[in-house]
Amino acid sequence: MNRLLTPRVSRFLETARAGHLATADARGRPHVVPVVFVLDRGRIYTPIDGKPKGDPRKLRRIRNIAENPRVAFLVDHYEEDWTKLGFVLLQGTASILTSTSGALEPGEEDEYQRSKALLRKKYPQYEFVSLGGPDGLIICITPESCTTWGQLWA
Amino acid sequence: MNRLLTPRVSRFLETARAGHLATADARGRPHVVPVVFVLDRGRIYTPIDGKPKGDPRKLRRIRNIAENPRVAFLVDHYEEDWTKLGFVLLQGTASILTSTSGALEPGEEDEYQRSKALLRKKYPQYEFVSLGGPDGLIICITPESCTTWGQLWA
Repeated sequence: MNRLLTPRVSRFLETARAGHLATADARGRPHVVPVVFVLDRGRIYTPIDGKPKGDPRKLRRIRNIAENPRVAFLVDHYEEDWTKLGFVLLQGTASILTSTSGALEPGEEDEYQRSKALLRKKYPQYEFVSLGGPDGLIICITPESCTTWGQLWA
Repeated sequence: MNRLLTPRVSRFLETARAGHLATADARGRPHVVPVVFVLDRGRIYTPIDGKPKGDPRKLRRIRNIAENPRVAFLVDHYEEDWTKLGFVLLQGTASILTSTSGALEPGEEDEYQRSKALLRKKYPQYEFVSLGGPDGLIICITPESCTTWGQLWA
């Protein structure tokens, strides 16, 4: 159970189709990429998808998390009417899930498989796009702080 | 003159209405916010706007840049047809411009005033929203690397 995210914030996150993941390497050099994601039980799960990028462990975001698990995750809404701008910023730590990561709690469904199933449900695109294959990775973000700004209409 | 950005990348950046700025504090904790911006002569300029947030120097992004000038700046395009996704990621260093920063080169227009004029031109919203006032700040990003992915249709 995670009480950091209010129902309004959770709805804003759940209905968003994409977010932005910021990481930094051991020297503090930031990096940011757009990501698809699901929110599940207060955590954010974002996949390294199955496109032919080579070894996913060589991706900058994965190398950064290995060096420095601190991350920021943002969902925002832009439109030309600036009275309607809004964002949710989560800061916390990330871990990397693999097909051998196991369950979050004893007796539970495997967390890696569970997040993959939720991603397939949210994004029908995964019917045609590989979701990582057996070597795929899922980044799991555990938020420690939540900052909101502006309008959070979901 | 800046040859890091190809004409196609420059067009993609110029036509985008918003970007994402990632910074990190001295301990390497990342932060990311959505921003409006202009591209001018190879640099990105993004304002701290005039909303009543109190002293802009207390904003996390400004404190982070003061501690650690390394930044990442992303412009991306999301749509449900994933064959049309694309992004441009710039990594480099940021500096803070104020009304007393002066010109980029001798004899030139004041860089702070120039970027403000370009922001007003790109965003008609600044007719009604304060662009920082006399104490406003402009973040100037000088890119040192440029990574592109996917489709960059401007």
